Amino acid sequence: MEHRPVGVFDSGLGGLTAVRELMQLLPGEDIIYFGDTARVPYGSRSPETILKFARQDMNFLCSFDLKAVVIACGTVSTTSLATLQDEYDLPVIGVVEPTAAMAARQTRSGRIGLIATQASIRSGAYERALHRLDGSIQVTGAACPLFVPLVENGRFRPGDVVIETVAREYLRPMKDAGVDTLMLGCTHYPLLHDVIAGEMGPEVTLISSGYAAALALKTLLAERDDLSGAAQGDTSYFVSDTVDGFEQAASLFLRCDLKGMAQQINIEKY
Amino acid sequence: MEHRPVGVFDSGLGGLTAVRELMQLLPGEDIIYFGDTARVPYGSRSPETILKFARQDMNFLCSFDLKAVVIACGTVSTTSLATLQDEYDLPVIGVVEPTAAMAARQTRSGRIGLIATQASIRSGAYERALHRLDGSIQVTGAACPLFVPLVENGRFRPGDVVIETVAREYLRPMKDAGVDTLMLGCTHYPLLHDVIAGEMGPEVTLISSGYAAALALKTLLAERDDLSGAAQGDTSYFVSDTVDGFEQAASLFLRCDLKGMAQQINIEKY
Repeated sequence: MEHRPVGVFDSGLGGLTAVRELMQLLPGEDIIYFGDTARVPYGSRSPETILKFARQDMNFLCSFDLKAVVIACGTVSTTSLATLQDEYDLPVIGVVEPTAAMAARQTRSGRIGLIATQASIRSGAYERALHRLDGSIQVTGAACPLFVPLVENGRFRPGDVVIETVAREYLRPMKDAGVDTLMLGCTHYPLLHDVIAGEMGPEVTLISSGYAAALALKTLLAERDDLSGAAQGDTSYFVSDTVDGFEQAASLFLRCDLKGMAQQINIEKY
Repeated sequence: MEHRPVGVFDSGLGGLTAVRELMQLLPGEDIIYFGDTARVPYGSRSPETILKFARQDMNFLCSFDLKAVVIACGTVSTTSLATLQDEYDLPVIGVVEPTAAMAARQTRSGRIGLIATQASIRSGAYERALHRLDGSIQVTGAACPLFVPLVENGRFRPGDVVIETVAREYLRPMKDAGVDTLMLGCTHYPLLHDVIAGEMGPEVTLISSGYAAALALKTLLAERDDLSGAAQGDTSYFVSDTVDGFEQAASLFLRCDLKGMAQQINIEKY
């Protein structure tokens, strides 16, 4: 048993969907969440800038004594994971390998789709991870840069012509390719589950990267005998911009009230 | 005559619409542009973060010997202008006062609309500027947080159901209030001119904040006898993220090719 907390970070709010999965899969763990709300979004930035930001995020989290870190940010996972794993002396789990492994287990046709940010798609990281598992898998990827701002502005509900039009355009290559499994490579996308499922149809399985990463952490901690064993863990929330906007928007992702629970830190000091 | 260049900054690309107006109104001036593309957008951030970023933007520009600075960022103009004017020893022109003055001259009904980012609307700066000119003016404001990502993803053309649906919702309070003049309080919005004009109808005058600020600079330089007098000025472009994405997207805003013309700087050093 190991009582040290687990760290989770994201460029902003989306990682809270991974926190939610962690709370359900690992209710006994203490969690420290950092959302880089002053510098969100990462997805449209250059690899150099993303790595610099990711190191600062890791440095902040590692100012706590942690047993593992989950990178709940698809962009950082695809562009910077190997570097961070080299540079930091604790297990660092990204979203790519767990999501790819789950998708490879799930697919029957061998045709898998990926929706993610521009930077994640460009990196080719999901494709490489899938091909390490099975070289015959066909991957169809599409960048969906408008999904994050649309979700954050509350436009994620079925019946909204704006999100449905954008989703139909973004998902067309997936439908044309006949994928039977679709990886949601951004932690904002679980909020679009119903819109995406409505567009893709019931025969396509959606894989949430936050859920896959949370399950990978559970497996890792169990293997190392590092589960906390507590009945109920605590979660602490830190952000780089003011807490007001965060606490309000966070309720969307976490489906619970965070009023008074988040603290602001200066990420550029790390 | 005064040959020192003019500085212009914005949180990202939008300020290029103001640069375009400056080039047309003041073709002889040298211009130094800085776009904080590594930290865009500012509009959803807290006032403290916006002021910190704005000081760094000013510090970078003032590393050149300038005769004036135009803040082509609605968010910085509304939240931080007075502080920056106090702290820096050169004329600093924001977009608020020039836009408000132009709108007040234009309106016949005394009902003026404002569309801008969340931070600009919350600040109340446009309303205060209008009421200093005429206490009887009625101002109707609406935050349009999706306009910037939609423009940056190329969705600004009439006939696109996505931008038209979002614009119709955002502009409804303006139509209900019967405004005859609408201030575009964000330098991205000139790209939406046709969509907004189509929604508001021909009887409503649109005021571009970038044009108003460029005209205010021309007046200021003429009054101080500080116009350059050159036939043709140069423009230099600096950004805080890599130049690749910038040069591509910039052509949208500037309607000319910037290939090889932009330089990346580390804004956090300033």
